[in-house]
Amino acid sequence: MLSFDVTKSTEEDGNMKFNAKTSLGAGSGRDEGTRSKPRSSRPTMAMVAERVGVSTQTVSFALSSPGRLSPATLRKVLKAVDELGYRPNQAARSLRSRSPQALGFRLYPADRDVGGVMASYLYELSAAARKAGYGVFSYAAETYEEETQIVEETFRRNTVDCFVITCPSSDDLPLPLFLLERQIPFVVFGRPWGLPMSDCWWVDVDGAAGLEQAVNHLVELGHRRIAYLGWEKSAGLAEDRESGWQRAMGSHGLPTRGMIVRGPDDVETGRRAAGELLDRQTPPTGIICPSDTMAIGAMRACRERGLEPGRDVGITGYDDSLGARVVTPGLTSIAQPLETAAKHTVRLLLDLLNNPDSKPEQVLLRPSLVVRESTVPR
Amino acid sequence: MLSFDVTKSTEEDGNMKFNAKTSLGAGSGRDEGTRSKPRSSRPTMAMVAERVGVSTQTVSFALSSPGRLSPATLRKVLKAVDELGYRPNQAARSLRSRSPQALGFRLYPADRDVGGVMASYLYELSAAARKAGYGVFSYAAETYEEETQIVEETFRRNTVDCFVITCPSSDDLPLPLFLLERQIPFVVFGRPWGLPMSDCWWVDVDGAAGLEQAVNHLVELGHRRIAYLGWEKSAGLAEDRESGWQRAMGSHGLPTRGMIVRGPDDVETGRRAAGELLDRQTPPTGIICPSDTMAIGAMRACRERGLEPGRDVGITGYDDSLGARVVTPGLTSIAQPLETAAKHTVRLLLDLLNNPDSKPEQVLLRPSLVVRESTVPR
Repeated sequence: MLSFDVTKSTEEDGNMKFNAKTSLGAGSGRDEGTRSKPRSSRPTMAMVAERVGVSTQTVSFALSSPGRLSPATLRKVLKAVDELGYRPNQAARSLRSRSPQALGFRLYPADRDVGGVMASYLYELSAAARKAGYGVFSYAAETYEEETQIVEETFRRNTVDCFVITCPSSDDLPLPLFLLERQIPFVVFGRPWGLPMSDCWWVDVDGAAGLEQAVNHLVELGHRRIAYLGWEKSAGLAEDRESGWQRAMGSHGLPTRGMIVRGPDDVETGRRAAGELLDRQTPPTGIICPSDTMAIGAMRACRERGLEPGRDVGITGYDDSLGARVVTPGLTSIAQPLETAAKHTVRLLLDLLNNPDSKPEQVLLRPSLVVRESTVPR
Repeated sequence: MLSFDVTKSTEEDGNMKFNAKTSLGAGSGRDEGTRSKPRSSRPTMAMVAERVGVSTQTVSFALSSPGRLSPATLRKVLKAVDELGYRPNQAARSLRSRSPQALGFRLYPADRDVGGVMASYLYELSAAARKAGYGVFSYAAETYEEETQIVEETFRRNTVDCFVITCPSSDDLPLPLFLLERQIPFVVFGRPWGLPMSDCWWVDVDGAAGLEQAVNHLVELGHRRIAYLGWEKSAGLAEDRESGWQRAMGSHGLPTRGMIVRGPDDVETGRRAAGELLDRQTPPTGIICPSDTMAIGAMRACRERGLEPGRDVGITGYDDSLGARVVTPGLTSIAQPLETAAKHTVRLLLDLLNNPDSKPEQVLLRPSLVVRESTVPR
């Protein structure tokens, strides 16, 4: 595990805010307050001019009033701009085009946003961005290659000034690494699992704390055998959520050994995994899940065995999705403070854009438990 | 009702495509192939120059390389540009900024997109737009005033070239009227209820046909008393969906009198309205709903009376949402072909942008019935 020092402070809303004090740990030889790549690596207008053999004025014209150049010269300059990855600076840009500034955000297909969390977050992000004079450029991408192509293209062309990305597991690391390498500003919604946490700007909701709340709630209701339906290991989100259950169980002195079944995040997995637990000689009386989807599967497994969720088995989900509200009985779930998260994201983006050399800031928000009929006193 | 003539043709996918032949009906005195506002009403660069008392070259500089002007002159020109509503033309623009072109799309909060249809459509729209070289600028707006301000601002500043809007009822008419008046290109996803249908470019899914399929399905399963839980009258979508149930019931010679209860689109309304129907002396055996939300409420009403949805009462929803998939029993629902709708939307937008004077085109797609356990043979 990477170690990092943070100062914790309690915000007005009772949430923890982390301010990174160091990054990459001692001995990295980095000056505080500078980016990991020297500024000079960034291509300049002079470098473009030199490559083409024209004046910087010509390069400037190519980008601001291309009609003044011959098509041949224009083509040559734009080719060099692309090849070198040159990008006009912010100040010149906003004067030139007077475009509202924009942040980029990737869209996901419905089956990757089952609880509708990303759609709700996007709405809140757009509302918060609007108040800061920013628009949201949203894009669909099927592959990592397509995503990086869109990111590079829209950033280079000043369509987008910065990005909000998600990075749920270490499999998703290539994107933040790509952005860091190219010095493209971004804030992570979630945490950059697998990177030094204090190296990035991020806003996350403390999933582990949410799972702890769920366990504490079941313990208060009289449960002692509380199982966990986990996601497969991912070096990230999956481990974080599971750790909340582990920690809370430990703090109550309750056993966790043999109380976990893991699988992909879908209703069928929830149903099968819960079935496996319920068919044991000493089945659990409570089942904690990292998603509403798995919890809804667990409710089905109960019903198939003549057990009533709530009365016979306490079940909790995560995300407080539509699903949690419409199933019968209603599903107790963990709600993420998406509006607050979006506001912090925009605040961090503005800080980052205004002071690109400042130390990255991190915000960790506390989710809340929404109690419904799937958990009742024993 | 407004009357309009359309030629219908069957597309390769079996869907109907309407090509408007006339708009606003005979006697409107309009030349075919021209927009309702004369072109000359659009402000020109010369008009801006005249107002400020500068040359058109100065106006051009203000928009393309403002650094060349004194701040005072720049301010005066930009003020006149805003006041007159002047907008540089497309060709000059794409040369100047080399920005990817973009379409604008409004985001809705989660409680206005319960089935997640708009979120899924946005994903498909972004994917289709991307293939055409277009990005999607998505925005949240709380009021009509805020929306028109964003629309005007982003269009004037060339951030967005065109919009995709929705217009579910005649209450939503101000927006398309605003866009038509300002000659801002747009395609409606849905139909512009309350406007002459052939006056706008739109892509819709035939909700009435979907409801007909649901009725036919229940009739095939042996149902005869089939009630409808409707939305309150809205001069638009609500009437359209209801008409599908009406039409199908009529075609089977089944009674509709007293078989409708209407209310707002939520679970509680579905529960109460279905309860009212089920408590009658001769209750319906089938209940058709215009949304999954209301259908889920109807399922609850059944359970509360010891009736099992599917076995005792056949129930259908609309949107094939997550809710339909996770409730027990699974809810039979109507699925919209969102990917196809998004592709047509982008195709129409390109046609409209390339040939702004051509006759508006309309596409009406057929939804499909997804059968689950809430409807079984009697």
